[in-house]
Amino acid sequence: MDRIPVLKIGAALLVTIQVDLHDSVAMALEEDLSNLIVKSGAKGVLIDISALEIVDSFIGRTLANIASVARLLDAETVVVGMRPAVAITLVELGLSLPGVRTALNAERGMALIQARLSDSYGEPGAAGF
Amino acid sequence: MDRIPVLKIGAALLVTIQVDLHDSVAMALEEDLSNLIVKSGAKGVLIDISALEIVDSFIGRTLANIASVARLLDAETVVVGMRPAVAITLVELGLSLPGVRTALNAERGMALIQARLSDSYGEPGAAGF
Repeated sequence: MDRIPVLKIGAALLVTIQVDLHDSVAMALEEDLSNLIVKSGAKGVLIDISALEIVDSFIGRTLANIASVARLLDAETVVVGMRPAVAITLVELGLSLPGVRTALNAERGMALIQARLSDSYGEPGAAGF
Repeated sequence: MDRIPVLKIGAALLVTIQVDLHDSVAMALEEDLSNLIVKSGAKGVLIDISALEIVDSFIGRTLANIASVARLLDAETVVVGMRPAVAITLVELGLSLPGVRTALNAERGMALIQARLSDSYGEPGAAGF
């Protein structure tokens, strides 16, 4: 498996990270996500990390990078399902993920993205949702 | 990784299969899904297999089992993202996945589940969606 599947659900792109993010997998994910944001006009990226027991500095940086790229493409990134131990590790690593929003689970993350969508009323992309 | 994460999105449970489904992983998935259907009152199960290049008879049987269990719990299973080669292999294996609905991608699968939800008007569970 060299690519993590990205699913389009409503106005969001959804990614579930289940495998170790090696260099090439992480780069492919960043590329796929940015292409899909542009192609689909998605307003949000939902990244589920509930399967991850360990988040090292590489994964932390990857998440922050994805969020930065998504923001430049006018999409918000929400990381969902973070385990408490992972949050503690991230802070200990000095990675507080600036610019990345979090939500307890996918449902709440989706609600965040929908709320952002309702705020951007009158926008052409918002009508189809 | 011994468990595949299950996400609740709206009235559906979403699973993305990215790793090889060994016996124990498949059994854990079946168990998690059935528990979550009951707990959340989900009306549909969306299984994305776009990452799978090969589907053997074990995976085929697992998908069929999940669909049967879900139906008994009043939820519909939609398999999405199947590659053409996988469809050919499944038929060659004699597995046409009876009782499993399919859709080209997650978005269409979600639409199927929502359509089913709209049909079941007046049901207590349908109001919250």
